Amino acid sequence: MSSEFGKILKVSVFGQSHGTAIGVVMDGLPAGEEIDLEELQRFLDRRRPGKSSLSTARKEGDVPEFLSGLENGRTCGAPLCAMIRNSDQRSGDYAGLADKPRPGHADYTAWVKWKGLADMRGGGHFSGRLTAPLCIAGGIAKQILARRGIYVGAHLDSVGTACDEHFPLCPTRELFEAVAAKPFPALSDNDGARMQDAILAAKDALDSVGGVIECAAIGVPAGLGDPMFDGVENRLAAALFGIPAVKGVEFGAGFSAAARRGSKNNDSFTIENGTISAGSNHAGGILGGITTGMPVTLRVAVKPTPSIGQPQKTVSLSAMEDTDLTIHGRHDPCIAHRAVPVVEAVTATVLLDLLLEGDHGTF
Amino acid sequence: MSSEFGKILKVSVFGQSHGTAIGVVMDGLPAGEEIDLEELQRFLDRRRPGKSSLSTARKEGDVPEFLSGLENGRTCGAPLCAMIRNSDQRSGDYAGLADKPRPGHADYTAWVKWKGLADMRGGGHFSGRLTAPLCIAGGIAKQILARRGIYVGAHLDSVGTACDEHFPLCPTRELFEAVAAKPFPALSDNDGARMQDAILAAKDALDSVGGVIECAAIGVPAGLGDPMFDGVENRLAAALFGIPAVKGVEFGAGFSAAARRGSKNNDSFTIENGTISAGSNHAGGILGGITTGMPVTLRVAVKPTPSIGQPQKTVSLSAMEDTDLTIHGRHDPCIAHRAVPVVEAVTATVLLDLLLEGDHGTF
Amino acid sequence: MSSEFGKILKVSVFGQSHGTAIGVVMDGLPAGEEIDLEELQRFLDRRRPGKSSLSTARKEGDVPEFLSGLENGRTCGAPLCAMIRNSDQRSGDYAGLADKPRPGHADYTAWVKWKGLADMRGGGHFSGRLTAPLCIAGGIAKQILARRGIYVGAHLDSVGTACDEHFPLCPTRELFEAVAAKPFPALSDNDGARMQDAILAAKDALDSVGGVIECAAIGVPAGLGDPMFDGVENRLAAALFGIPAVKGVEFGAGFSAAARRGSKNNDSFTIENGTISAGSNHAGGILGGITTGMPVTLRVAVKPTPSIGQPQKTVSLSAMEDTDLTIHGRHDPCIAHRAVPVVEAVTATVLLDLLLEGDHGTF
Amino acid sequence: MSSEFGKILKVSVFGQSHGTAIGVVMDGLPAGEEIDLEELQRFLDRRRPGKSSLSTARKEGDVPEFLSGLENGRTCGAPLCAMIRNSDQRSGDYAGLADKPRPGHADYTAWVKWKGLADMRGGGHFSGRLTAPLCIAGGIAKQILARRGIYVGAHLDSVGTACDEHFPLCPTRELFEAVAAKPFPALSDNDGARMQDAILAAKDALDSVGGVIECAAIGVPAGLGDPMFDGVENRLAAALFGIPAVKGVEFGAGFSAAARRGSKNNDSFTIENGTISAGSNHAGGILGGITTGMPVTLRVAVKPTPSIGQPQKTVSLSAMEDTDLTIHGRHDPCIAHRAVPVVEAVTATVLLDLLLEGDHGTF
Repeated sequence: MSSEFGKILKVSVFGQSHGTAIGVVMDGLPAGEEIDLEELQRFLDRRRPGKSSLSTARKEGDVPEFLSGLENGRTCGAPLCAMIRNSDQRSGDYAGLADKPRPGHADYTAWVKWKGLADMRGGGHFSGRLTAPLCIAGGIAKQILARRGIYVGAHLDSVGTACDEHFPLCPTRELFEAVAAKPFPALSDNDGARMQDAILAAKDALDSVGGVIECAAIGVPAGLGDPMFDGVENRLAAALFGIPAVKGVEFGAGFSAAARRGSKNNDSFTIENGTISAGSNHAGGILGGITTGMPVTLRVAVKPTPSIGQPQKTVSLSAMEDTDLTIHGRHDPCIAHRAVPVVEAVTATVLLDLLLEGDHGTF
Repeated sequence: MSSEFGKILKVSVFGQSHGTAIGVVMDGLPAGEEIDLEELQRFLDRRRPGKSSLSTARKEGDVPEFLSGLENGRTCGAPLCAMIRNSDQRSGDYAGLADKPRPGHADYTAWVKWKGLADMRGGGHFSGRLTAPLCIAGGIAKQILARRGIYVGAHLDSVGTACDEHFPLCPTRELFEAVAAKPFPALSDNDGARMQDAILAAKDALDSVGGVIECAAIGVPAGLGDPMFDGVENRLAAALFGIPAVKGVEFGAGFSAAARRGSKNNDSFTIENGTISAGSNHAGGILGGITTGMPVTLRVAVKPTPSIGQPQKTVSLSAMEDTDLTIHGRHDPCIAHRAVPVVEAVTATVLLDLLLEGDHGTF
Repeated sequence: MSSEFGKILKVSVFGQSHGTAIGVVMDGLPAGEEIDLEELQRFLDRRRPGKSSLSTARKEGDVPEFLSGLENGRTCGAPLCAMIRNSDQRSGDYAGLADKPRPGHADYTAWVKWKGLADMRGGGHFSGRLTAPLCIAGGIAKQILARRGIYVGAHLDSVGTACDEHFPLCPTRELFEAVAAKPFPALSDNDGARMQDAILAAKDALDSVGGVIECAAIGVPAGLGDPMFDGVENRLAAALFGIPAVKGVEFGAGFSAAARRGSKNNDSFTIENGTISAGSNHAGGILGGITTGMPVTLRVAVKPTPSIGQPQKTVSLSAMEDTDLTIHGRHDPCIAHRAVPVVEAVTATVLLDLLLEGDHGTF
Repeated sequence: MSSEFGKILKVSVFGQSHGTAIGVVMDGLPAGEEIDLEELQRFLDRRRPGKSSLSTARKEGDVPEFLSGLENGRTCGAPLCAMIRNSDQRSGDYAGLADKPRPGHADYTAWVKWKGLADMRGGGHFSGRLTAPLCIAGGIAKQILARRGIYVGAHLDSVGTACDEHFPLCPTRELFEAVAAKPFPALSDNDGARMQDAILAAKDALDSVGGVIECAAIGVPAGLGDPMFDGVENRLAAALFGIPAVKGVEFGAGFSAAARRGSKNNDSFTIENGTISAGSNHAGGILGGITTGMPVTLRVAVKPTPSIGQPQKTVSLSAMEDTDLTIHGRHDPCIAHRAVPVVEAVTATVLLDLLLEGDHGTF
């Protein structure tokens, strides 16, 4: 296992859904960075469940305790460890599931890998709950990046077949803040209402629904990243696929670029205010794995929550025979909207790592 | 820079398009594996240019010389190094481009990163030519995997808006071999003809076109990979984005899963011939980052070749002013069909790495 | 920074001497391993200070709390996080030191690196206190190894010029347990008494003294490790130099091999009880980076504690002028005897990592 | 296997003693660095065999061919690959050895690991011949470092019991160059003569002898490296143990520090010419894993060449019985003097990697 990513800034996540605590170690943070804990808490609250009928009723404060790395509100050069104690656990809800792997969850693959010895209560280490420590890391990274004029924002691009608008060519910090302040992370309120309807309709049908998240980072200097396997896309994708339920990642025009001709997909260079820019950004701010200076843009596909209220077909691992399963307990009919800050968090953490690594192109 | 990927099996790629040679080092291969050099050459020939009007006219033998790691046709435990000397270089074709970054290429980002000091003739280290060493690595990985009953195959899923059929739920080795033997890598010959038409139409318009590649691996045992950041998706995506021009990667249903409801996206488990299987494979054979035993399936978006014959707008780096650029020389109107074996190669290499790492779930 | 080591089993250490807590994350432990917490505590107690006049008077319970990875006394497949809250802090003892770097400590280099922004109270993240989490990791590794017949033991080989006996050619588990049970970790009680005298003499002189630790691992199977840069020596040395105050590492005959002739240094192979063995072990159980099956033996040089009661010459960083410094507070006149279990811990952790990686020589 | 080291600058070594070629890939070099090939060749010639009666009679030109990464005499941003074709192979010399592992060599451990499938002719990938590519990498690193005022030098500190002088507290570039220009790498010519006598005496006795190498780097800025497991000592040691026959590594006073008291071992800080310096350097220029700005000093123990002309006891792997072995062919009675430039090379490469990584202490 390696629940860790990063090169200069290494982020290591620990915890199980129903264990004592979850948390994160950030190794490689620069010293002297002030962390605004209230701003961090507001960021964490964006992914927190229990706020509305759109999410699981599980209530958790998600207030991190800092065990190391932070002194007098500033990073101090040592690895930062933050943890959140698990409080509202109802393991009983999951009793009896152990023998019947839930379709779409990691129950079966974990059973194969750990031969039934893993702690899979509530999804164990695979649980979406582990995105809370990712948001601690990402919330800290966002503050450090913002001090350098780099801002990361995201919104829910679609739920099922209901779509939001896309980010404009050059989104602004104000736009990021506006969507972050909304109770539902859509650019267009009308589209947001339709996406919420899609979630509630799935909930009413004892079902769930997936979604797509669009994320952008502005102010990223040109020249970060490397060709081939250490590029910005490689590193972002490797980290983003670590968010539970993510099944696709694309940059810039992504899959739609494959349907285009080159004359329409190439971003022409031009001089704008004395610097080199592009009139379009189908490259998503990345050419040859290296940032262009245009916004870094990406889209992430989140599958529908595997836990649904409808009976499903599965197998009994002990009897090795087909059986039925009905999952009780509390579930999110959609996790895509709650994953919006998580995508921001992971994107910000990877970009901070790239920024810390710097540009080794020349000495 | 790190033109390397892999954990137990490390694959390191070197070379520039117009340098002395390109090549690959594979560090971590098991000893005693017989490598059929004729079979390897047939695999390399699948990506080789100069075979038809669909590709660049650049002709290269692409016959690797093995410098180490292979003795008497078998791997010998030491790192394997193979190289291909560059022969048919026409650097003159690229003269004058240095000052005018080609839209869609890495010229501009390389100029920023290396301050004009990089060897960018023919794309330098960013060139699609570097996929030849990837295919050497992948061709070797494919032979080692095949000996363990694991087969990797791919086909061109779409070109522009022309689409091929998809792989069936459980593709076979024979199907993989059949499509590999075709001059154009489509499952359906009719669809293949339409896709070729799309390429030729783009060529006629002095333009280019993108495409999507579908890849599948069968025989992969359940239990490979790890949760969070060291999962099969993370590792495959990190490597696949190393193929030049790839802008999107999805597993299983991928982005289309985001449009679905959970009841339709979950793959129900069932007992089939005494083993646990699933009646659908929207998960692409991966749950929680770990293989399920179903085929591993993925799709890769390849952008249209940035080099087109039409005049394009760009800037003069020396004058810092807008200018026009017309690219002469030989270019592929589409690289997606040539990237089909490259996607197979990278997928096979990552799977071999995972297989060598084994299952550390329990001792 | 990277306060982490390991390949399959990654061990990440966090905390500062006077911060909230110190701890460790072990990522990659196999599931289902029973951890005897009482045995672990006995191991931790071996390095704990405050037990005698030989050590600092700082008293700490050093009882770890497990935040994740351990359920019902067994590893559960998820990363294991354990922490120890810091209780007996007296930061006041260190007031005023910030401007005067203590000779032999990392104060000056930390000041250069973090520009005075690091938390260096009590040595911060450089403190010997950070060896407590290393012992948690190593104590767990020792239990898992012991279950496979692999035992790791160490003793204090010398203090100043007072020397202990060396381990015999093939030490036994019983010998390891006997020395671990002693209040002072010497093989020979007479030599131990002389080494203790050397420590007390240094203490009386307001001074400190260094020492050498000999460590051995028995039951290690042949074939672990790799040539060149991923060998057993490389990986053990890289980790052992992470123990504060370690300035030298040697394997087998080590530096004394350099004074020998080949005919005396080569270990002849012979058949013993049907298996291949050697009549001597100058190689320290490692040839070409790979284990031979003989005991893995190594020696580690620990410098004298930099903190001494005598006045020392240093500089004022603010005034950039020479000055004097007298360090008050509690210090160990020798840390080498307390580092004995730490060397065992690090050695055991690296060997477990190698064992989990397994032997990829052939498939 | 991982025949690679480095973090930002990755160095990957390939080849077997009697294979087609040996070589190295350097991934992460900055662009635009001029490489003086004649100077590089002079450096390579320092380790080349066949120059005197002190070394093996095997003659090799050791002239590297650059396959990539070097254009018009300058690094070009792409991975640099250099290879040396093997010419003077006499595999016949090694015929029949396969069944009888040579004591002190990796024959037995390789046989266990690769089950007899490795190419072990002439030591295969374990051969000292693989230090030639290390010297290519290190020779390039030395040139890049020298341009930044950082110089690395080494000398033979002892052979058997014959000792050279040690480096002065602050060695100079001129001293490094003077010893590098000598046919035998001793600081004192008298001591050098005695060390050569020791080698010839061993040769006459059909035996071999070990030695110790002292290496120093001057001009290294303070603040490089990190605490715990990513420090300068960890990284240097991990790489230095990759040199065949190295069995011990120590920094500064090393093992002798363990025999000292703190008052004698601590290096007092003082102001010298306006900068902070130390009047002694028992720390070897490294405190807490981080460079102090004083010279980085280290010593490396090289065991006696395992190949000796005397008959030795070993086993027959096929018969599993004791037997005798007499090694014919050409061998070095001592490899320590030839390893002097190799230690310089590895040290320079690691320091360049650290320098490229830079100081991430603050942003």
